[in-house]
Amino acid sequence: MNKRSLAILLRARMRPNNNNSTKLALSPLTNEMQSNPQSNQSGSRATQHASQNRQKPQREFEHVRESMSLAISMNKTEVIDSVLNDFSEGYFSLYYENRRRLLLELAKEYDLNRAQVRELIKQYLGVSGEEAHSPGPEDEGVLASFFRIERNLRHALKPKYEALFERLNMHPGGLKFLTILRADILSIIAEENIASLRALDSYLKEKLGTWLSPAALELHQITWDDPASLLEKIVAYEAVHPISNLLDLKRRLGVGRRCFGYLHPAIPGEPLIFIEVALLKNVAETIQEVLWDDPPIPESEATCALFYSISSTQPGLAGINLGKFLIKRVITLVKKDMPHISTFATLSPIPGYIQWLLSKLASQSKLAEDDKSHSSADTSGSTFWENLFEPEEEKAIMDISEEVAAGKNGMEVMLNLLTSSNQEWSKSAELLSVLKTPLLRLCARYLLQEKKRGKALDSVANFHLQNGAMVERINWMADKSEKGLHQSAGIMVNYVYRLEKIEEYAQAYFSSGHIHASDEIHRHVEPWKKPEATAN
Amino acid sequence: MNKRSLAILLRARMRPNNNNSTKLALSPLTNEMQSNPQSNQSGSRATQHASQNRQKPQREFEHVRESMSLAISMNKTEVIDSVLNDFSEGYFSLYYENRRRLLLELAKEYDLNRAQVRELIKQYLGVSGEEAHSPGPEDEGVLASFFRIERNLRHALKPKYEALFERLNMHPGGLKFLTILRADILSIIAEENIASLRALDSYLKEKLGTWLSPAALELHQITWDDPASLLEKIVAYEAVHPISNLLDLKRRLGVGRRCFGYLHPAIPGEPLIFIEVALLKNVAETIQEVLWDDPPIPESEATCALFYSISSTQPGLAGINLGKFLIKRVITLVKKDMPHISTFATLSPIPGYIQWLLSKLASQSKLAEDDKSHSSADTSGSTFWENLFEPEEEKAIMDISEEVAAGKNGMEVMLNLLTSSNQEWSKSAELLSVLKTPLLRLCARYLLQEKKRGKALDSVANFHLQNGAMVERINWMADKSEKGLHQSAGIMVNYVYRLEKIEEYAQAYFSSGHIHASDEIHRHVEPWKKPEATAN
Repeated sequence: MNKRSLAILLRARMRPNNNNSTKLALSPLTNEMQSNPQSNQSGSRATQHASQNRQKPQREFEHVRESMSLAISMNKTEVIDSVLNDFSEGYFSLYYENRRRLLLELAKEYDLNRAQVRELIKQYLGVSGEEAHSPGPEDEGVLASFFRIERNLRHALKPKYEALFERLNMHPGGLKFLTILRADILSIIAEENIASLRALDSYLKEKLGTWLSPAALELHQITWDDPASLLEKIVAYEAVHPISNLLDLKRRLGVGRRCFGYLHPAIPGEPLIFIEVALLKNVAETIQEVLWDDPPIPESEATCALFYSISSTQPGLAGINLGKFLIKRVITLVKKDMPHISTFATLSPIPGYIQWLLSKLASQSKLAEDDKSHSSADTSGSTFWENLFEPEEEKAIMDISEEVAAGKNGMEVMLNLLTSSNQEWSKSAELLSVLKTPLLRLCARYLLQEKKRGKALDSVANFHLQNGAMVERINWMADKSEKGLHQSAGIMVNYVYRLEKIEEYAQAYFSSGHIHASDEIHRHVEPWKKPEATAN
Repeated sequence: MNKRSLAILLRARMRPNNNNSTKLALSPLTNEMQSNPQSNQSGSRATQHASQNRQKPQREFEHVRESMSLAISMNKTEVIDSVLNDFSEGYFSLYYENRRRLLLELAKEYDLNRAQVRELIKQYLGVSGEEAHSPGPEDEGVLASFFRIERNLRHALKPKYEALFERLNMHPGGLKFLTILRADILSIIAEENIASLRALDSYLKEKLGTWLSPAALELHQITWDDPASLLEKIVAYEAVHPISNLLDLKRRLGVGRRCFGYLHPAIPGEPLIFIEVALLKNVAETIQEVLWDDPPIPESEATCALFYSISSTQPGLAGINLGKFLIKRVITLVKKDMPHISTFATLSPIPGYIQWLLSKLASQSKLAEDDKSHSSADTSGSTFWENLFEPEEEKAIMDISEEVAAGKNGMEVMLNLLTSSNQEWSKSAELLSVLKTPLLRLCARYLLQEKKRGKALDSVANFHLQNGAMVERINWMADKSEKGLHQSAGIMVNYVYRLEKIEEYAQAYFSSGHIHASDEIHRHVEPWKKPEATAN
């Protein structure tokens, strides 16, 4: 394929998802067909279907429902390829409301055979009455029937829709179809809390997790020699730093760079997740130097492998952590190929920082106004007031505020600055110098101290911490793109994977939520204390 | 790799298994280490271990037991690679008795948490008391807790050893190790009926079946350009028609031949099952013409794809039907590549025929002597007597018997002939002409009418029939090798896969045991009747 035709192809398909699609975000139901037109044959055929059948959605629905029912109830050895094709093509032709109806029916009508479960429970309690609690090797016959009932009960507790999932998984294109099905389910339960659909989702997620076990995945180094159909996926799914043009793509696959993806044999030509790596002399502080500014160095001089982007391609695999294994394998591979590389770090976005900060600023600045008369000692109670700024930060902000933004206190000024259109604050050297200290300090606090159910509030932080990384450094004006300014005031963070510490850190984070961080990071938060003692 | 070194390699490794290893046969425990020295790293390292540790088996056992326990009980996020390596290396270093002890302990000490199961059953009966039988959309909260208990119960019913299986599956080399573990388990339960070990086996088999779903398998055409390390496996595992030399192997991969294997990404370089195909003008009647006699025809002139050998390589995958999907995919592929091929047939051994016939001859000839006075009408009762021969067959056999083998009746004569050393009968034209008719007739009867639990008694027949084939033709003196004469008096059978009938035939066989067969085959059994009416 020559460059020109590839370029045309890339232009044509570049960023088919809308701009909000962040890592693991859901494609809306109706988008599935548009954004993955070639994801499988059914997709494109279904598009035709859909337009032909616009007039008869009810009939179409009934047909899909029948094929679904058939696909579940047909007996094991029947070759049900045509039924499964029918079902998946039919499903693609349905619009949101009918997909929702169908999935609800699947969740409700095809769950357990509860009469059978109760019958087996009765048998179980009967047999296990006395001997079960301490089954000895006495009577192999009793034990055998005991194990048999347990197995039957285990099977009876499997919902009937498992048959559909299992069959689709064995069917060409079926695994991909299941991920689309789950993406749809996730969209629905994001809107409505439906217990049976949640149960179905958790079941399907478990199944997908088994089928996509790392043992079944192939690590593939993606290069410029790969087919355009695969490279197109990289362009389409790169969720962290959009690929702007052909040169950009080529550079990310060229000298001093690596790109690795996990492929599943049942979803060929489409990595489920991929990671982009830059080989550098030092841990980069800004994304600009990685993507555009610095020419690549000779690979033999690199000492650092920087993971600057990791993107999942399948919204339907949300919650299944493929990245953890990918990072581990990539580290092992790079280390083996290039023993001179000793540092494995990331340059990561902080997607939740500004959102958190804005809500914090809004609520605190309101409290500050309400309680203006209160002394700061009077802060007990459920909604206690705190000034997010140090006194000297507050003073500096108020000093400058008159010229640029109104506000009764520092927090309100910052709120107004951060929400002003076009991120004007980022264009003023004076504002930048005033805001730098508090924004970095609050960012460190956000990363180290803001938790949800004992885990880091920031999704990317949580991802790397559970994989065993530590928080190494935060970098001012590291991503000046609109998205970077919007998400995290342009701040990016380096997480570092220390090979010999990965297990220990992952374990500490898992069991107690402990976040390992460098002294430098700790000093942002509490400059007067010894860092490790206050880290948790 | 040049031919000479490949030849040396092949000679060195040719047929490492003993001669009894038939399709899906088990390698005995102690053979695993010898016959698969390169199956994974642990294997060879373990061999060293074993010799070093010959003096301290008990200490070694304790060590493996501890690593097994650790591998099961460690918590989810801990990186347990080293523990799993420890366990698998340790396991390989154990001898039969200690492996057996370990597996028994795994089956007995790591099954269910029964106290938890009972507790959840109590909760389940509590919640499901009234509303569960017809859970409506009324109260999402009740439903949610209901689904939660069901999920918990489902999880509690999973044995603790599942963690070990799941972890090994995700671990490099782990899937292969699990198949070896299962091969060992199968050897043990073939000797002793241990309920808990049977339960463990059925659980592991189910898991392996999921992990080896056809979706995770890659169809690979094996050619002369493949690495010697892979070709070596073909030589080692070809179970139907042993590969005698390099030329033989090369011919099976050359013009007019195809060889396809299923590979799993986690077990690289080693097909789990492979099939050998010959492209021919007509369905072959003898294996000699396929393997040696006839030069290959130009592929464009072929009208028949003949499957002449299908071999599983992993004893630990016994009972997991990978062949069914392999055959279906190979048919589709060949049909697509070569539309001029219209017949898909096999030339298959009949491994159980002579064994069945001998036991039949022995029991019936004894009954014939005991009941010599009885008329043939007097054959009621539980062990009824029948003469396996037609009157003219009996006469011909008795006529010739004086010269070659003693016997009071035709059945005893045949029994003596078939069990005589060196298959002498097969060297006499006279004997061959006398024996041909009854041996073919009884073979057709064996294939069509001898059942076990409603399925064909012959394992290869059962395999092809459940895949949707029909019995087309039986061929006299089709395999004159020692093995062929021994197994089936040299008779081979052609099964035919009719593309448009595969589903129908598989379904009929599954639901009622009905065996589809050609008129010609039916005429062997009951020459006076219309065939289809008596086929079942």
